[in-house]
Amino acid sequence: MFVTKRVQSARILNQVTVFIRKIHSFDSKGKVLQVKINGEQLKFPYVWLRDNCQCDQCFHKSAKSRILDWSKFNINVKPKEVVETSDSMKVEWTDGHISQYGMNWLKYRNFSPEHQQQYKQAIFKPGKITWNGHQFEEICSRHDYNEVLHSDKALHDWLHKLAQYGVALIKNTPNSETAIDAVVDRVGFTKRTHYGIKFIVQNVENTSNVAYLSSNLQMHTDLPYYEYCPGTNLLHCLVQTKSTGGENLLSDCHYVAHYMKQNHPEEYRLLTEVEVEWSDIGVEHGNEFFKLHRGPVICINKLGEITRINFSIPQRGSHFPGQLEIVEPWYKAHGLFLELNHRCAAKFKTTDGDILTFDNIRLLHGRNAYEDNNNNVRKLIGAYMDWDEIYSRLRCLKVKLEKLDGIY
Amino acid sequence: MFVTKRVQSARILNQVTVFIRKIHSFDSKGKVLQVKINGEQLKFPYVWLRDNCQCDQCFHKSAKSRILDWSKFNINVKPKEVVETSDSMKVEWTDGHISQYGMNWLKYRNFSPEHQQQYKQAIFKPGKITWNGHQFEEICSRHDYNEVLHSDKALHDWLHKLAQYGVALIKNTPNSETAIDAVVDRVGFTKRTHYGIKFIVQNVENTSNVAYLSSNLQMHTDLPYYEYCPGTNLLHCLVQTKSTGGENLLSDCHYVAHYMKQNHPEEYRLLTEVEVEWSDIGVEHGNEFFKLHRGPVICINKLGEITRINFSIPQRGSHFPGQLEIVEPWYKAHGLFLELNHRCAAKFKTTDGDILTFDNIRLLHGRNAYEDNNNNVRKLIGAYMDWDEIYSRLRCLKVKLEKLDGIY
Repeated sequence: MFVTKRVQSARILNQVTVFIRKIHSFDSKGKVLQVKINGEQLKFPYVWLRDNCQCDQCFHKSAKSRILDWSKFNINVKPKEVVETSDSMKVEWTDGHISQYGMNWLKYRNFSPEHQQQYKQAIFKPGKITWNGHQFEEICSRHDYNEVLHSDKALHDWLHKLAQYGVALIKNTPNSETAIDAVVDRVGFTKRTHYGIKFIVQNVENTSNVAYLSSNLQMHTDLPYYEYCPGTNLLHCLVQTKSTGGENLLSDCHYVAHYMKQNHPEEYRLLTEVEVEWSDIGVEHGNEFFKLHRGPVICINKLGEITRINFSIPQRGSHFPGQLEIVEPWYKAHGLFLELNHRCAAKFKTTDGDILTFDNIRLLHGRNAYEDNNNNVRKLIGAYMDWDEIYSRLRCLKVKLEKLDGIY
Repeated sequence: MFVTKRVQSARILNQVTVFIRKIHSFDSKGKVLQVKINGEQLKFPYVWLRDNCQCDQCFHKSAKSRILDWSKFNINVKPKEVVETSDSMKVEWTDGHISQYGMNWLKYRNFSPEHQQQYKQAIFKPGKITWNGHQFEEICSRHDYNEVLHSDKALHDWLHKLAQYGVALIKNTPNSETAIDAVVDRVGFTKRTHYGIKFIVQNVENTSNVAYLSSNLQMHTDLPYYEYCPGTNLLHCLVQTKSTGGENLLSDCHYVAHYMKQNHPEEYRLLTEVEVEWSDIGVEHGNEFFKLHRGPVICINKLGEITRINFSIPQRGSHFPGQLEIVEPWYKAHGLFLELNHRCAAKFKTTDGDILTFDNIRLLHGRNAYEDNNNNVRKLIGAYMDWDEIYSRLRCLKVKLEKLDGIY
């Protein structure tokens, strides 16, 4: 509860003459301050305002971090006086401390559900758009290697499409094993795994991974046995096979999962609830590994949103960590999921110079069998990048390209 | 349902004379095979047995991976005949395919809840043991740098204690900025973040991170704004301050959380349910970053087990992604959590040559203010390692040291 006195006067604030819109005074029971910004009445809790004071004692400008000492923080803090001007709000607290907030800064922190949703999509993470395989040509955007390297707009567009659709192609990449590095550098760095900082996909005998064989590679996500499963996969096609086969299969599991949820709810439930032990055991670059991770095929959060897909025939461990009774129904749901993914998959063949980039915790990918010969040895250079780095780069680019004010 | 004919005879199997214990025959309704191993009656679903056939057509030996073609897999598969010997079981399926399983291999995949629990602790992940600050001297194990580098047992013991208690000290580390690398190499590799592959903790003006200041560093977890938050923190103390201050504070949030759950259930609920936006915005090594991650302070899984702790005053974003009404109660719960962590914290000062290693998604750590002078500039070298690599190394060491048979 608070009382507002409307005033129309000029006061000296920080040595600048500003136009004062309002001065509030307060009773002792209130917990929320109301401010009118662009005609909209916004509410901000006192405790939140005090916690987010932007003065030098409370907030470190270069580290852009809160530095107030929380062991001395008064959770029941109250304002004594609030002075609003056209572009900022000054709060004097009952303990004498003074805080000042920009109106744009406050606007970006509007607690209304509509604004929260808008901010979530615009800044936190772009929304996902699901697709069926027959829509692949429409939804798979093409980006030029040199433009991605030199234009912030092109870089932004590639990453934005990758976040939305889970797949995008970079074309015209130079024929070099290191060409992919420049793309990675534009974003951040790769996710290192026990297969290395980057990896080479070609036919290898006595391999520690079935991806390094020329036989049929069943649809899967990479490395589901990592708790921190690589977020995206970048596959630079240096040499594509001229034999029949070698086509990629790609399917959007979010599309398949939504379909299952509506049409096969029991199978959907099993795949979201039953934990599976994903596994990889072997030696690479002389180092032994024995990875295990437990998680369902379709991981959902409290809101029912899909956060991650785990799927791999070869890397599903032989330990089944669930109850005996659940095994057979789970296998049926698992079989249905694979069948639906095949039915909804896009099939296409990358060409030399393509970097196929896709969301590894959303899409299944696979590859048809092919045959190498002396003049034509299929070869891809692969690298993983995590979503932490991609979303971070996207936000930096967005702030820069859209000249957002008040965001931080 | 199945019928067993006990037989006591010798048959030629794989050119070796073996002693046959049993031959089963089957009706069409059964779904589970029963096998007696070491006096215990174990049950294995048909579909699981067929899926885990270990023959060369179904399982790739060097990749230790399933290669059977699941698009042709018959979920309703039935055995025709099963022949048990003392150390293996041979199954002939109705389609003529033959599978063979070692008894030790089967024993390790026992579906009984007791065995599952045992396997989980022994192989999947060691159980955690919680502690209060006053127990710190007892629970914080000391390990010698050279032993960790040269003895598998010492390496295993360090990692095992780190997994159990969330903290362990490596002593007698050489006074070199690269000494920590050899420890990391013994396990795997570091987790790279926008602060680098490793990082230096010392007082820096105009820093992008408040950890690089000499002032009081409030208790926190590192990098909660990473979805893939660094699992462990390794801090090599090259130069400790001779001034007063510079002590570490460490507290076990699992202990605190259990205490809150029992004594402050509503505050516990708020901290496990209300999502917070963790944030880090700045420039490091010339690269801009804008990290955001949303998650509660105490992250729990479906079983109510704590999977991760997020806590940082400076890196809690000013965007509050929840409803207005929840803000004040949440701040109170947050204040209580910090207060309890202070009350349960251990306080100690590392000395030159120590590597303090701790679980960054379980413990809070902090540091008291100190003062550098010309002859004494406090300096730590830090590195992060993820639990994926640590548990993997632990499992490899365990298999080697305990000569486990049948595990894979």
